[in-house]
Amino acid sequence: MTAQSADSCAGSLTVVGLGPGHPAQRTHAVTEALAAATDIVGYRTYVDFAGPFRTEQRLHASDNRVELGRARHAFELAAAGARVVVVSSGDPGVFAMATAVLEALDQADDPAWPSVQLRILPGVSAAQAAAALAGGPLGHDFCALSLSDNLKPWSEIERRLALVCEADLVLALYNPRSLTRPDQFGQALTLIRGHRAADTVVVLGHDISRPGERLTITSLAALDPEQADMRTLVIVGSSRTRRIERPDGGCWVYTPRFY
Amino acid sequence: MTAQSADSCAGSLTVVGLGPGHPAQRTHAVTEALAAATDIVGYRTYVDFAGPFRTEQRLHASDNRVELGRARHAFELAAAGARVVVVSSGDPGVFAMATAVLEALDQADDPAWPSVQLRILPGVSAAQAAAALAGGPLGHDFCALSLSDNLKPWSEIERRLALVCEADLVLALYNPRSLTRPDQFGQALTLIRGHRAADTVVVLGHDISRPGERLTITSLAALDPEQADMRTLVIVGSSRTRRIERPDGGCWVYTPRFY
Repeated sequence: MTAQSADSCAGSLTVVGLGPGHPAQRTHAVTEALAAATDIVGYRTYVDFAGPFRTEQRLHASDNRVELGRARHAFELAAAGARVVVVSSGDPGVFAMATAVLEALDQADDPAWPSVQLRILPGVSAAQAAAALAGGPLGHDFCALSLSDNLKPWSEIERRLALVCEADLVLALYNPRSLTRPDQFGQALTLIRGHRAADTVVVLGHDISRPGERLTITSLAALDPEQADMRTLVIVGSSRTRRIERPDGGCWVYTPRFY
Repeated sequence: MTAQSADSCAGSLTVVGLGPGHPAQRTHAVTEALAAATDIVGYRTYVDFAGPFRTEQRLHASDNRVELGRARHAFELAAAGARVVVVSSGDPGVFAMATAVLEALDQADDPAWPSVQLRILPGVSAAQAAAALAGGPLGHDFCALSLSDNLKPWSEIERRLALVCEADLVLALYNPRSLTRPDQFGQALTLIRGHRAADTVVVLGHDISRPGERLTITSLAALDPEQADMRTLVIVGSSRTRRIERPDGGCWVYTPRFY
């Protein structure tokens, strides 16, 4: 197959961020890409979030933890001429599908794949959605870390946590805890408690903008690791992060711009 | 004024993220809030981006660097019963207006302000827009730092940079350089070059999704500080960030999920 014939039959692959869940928290560009797709590829839960679809749109829903296989399947469909959309929760560029798609392209053994028209459409990530509901905890320097050791050694996660705590960054922690690694979030909290005061503000965002949404504002001392699971986004404040009491009994959380 | 009368006359204040620039990169919730507003408050450039508006909608455009005054004005209007929208570029929660609005609330001397119905609507931040156009450089652990020392001492910025470099995080650098502090970005680069290899991938996003959009992919060694200004978002890769050559002569940049 010559480069030209590969070009002429190649379709498109658009990786879209659905945002935290509710369709109103999605960009117009993503809504348009979903409407224009011939094929929708993704983890079953997110394909369900992305709908409804028209009868002629083909849905390719798969289980979690098969990101690379899903990405390769999307390239195969696009190389055959389809307008493929890969759906991702949040922002596809933040611990999500954009990287898996680029890994598949990097390892491509099919010469047609590089000719597929590839686009990434960003979205609102889980940390941003939780932060917005809580106020403005990410208003100053922050970091986004995944606590999952499926893809990196736990010792490296602990080393990074110690350094970002020393840097006094606000921490946005993705994938804090799962059934297969129930104890590591507690270990991470022990480490963080060694660096930050007991009254440091902690925000837990669970299923934000989805059914069952739950926002919890607590302190580092009071936080019980059992309060988090794989669908919880944890924000640990810096030494400057503050609370404002609300008339309704709740509070706002923010990190001042001034240091 | 009793709490109840404060309640009965209070309007609403919604802080919205316009995203990187183009209206298609905005969420539906933000578009709806803009349409429902009686009063729009913001930095002149962003009020212009947020339009067009209807004749009866009142625009309150102000200069840059008066964030707190703008936030206080927004509360005054809302406390008097208006449906106020404060516009912010990117995500209001990331180095933008959400924090200024909460600072104003924290320091409120008017008992009506806490009764204003306050909401923050997130958006796509500049780092996410630049990352999406480049591929997936933020696909693994990263940090977002502002290099402006208007609000924190330069020594603290250097201390944080050294720690996040040691943690091997991808760096998303906001406000890298301005007319009033032309030399600090060069100083920051000197520090980063002490920690990262010469061929480390660097992405510069300038006015992404606005007129004059420019994406530059270069290396830490080749980067000239003059390439950045206040409207440039700089992403410095980690030791793992990679390039993939594209058939069009450009390249994709991504940070693998595996460490």
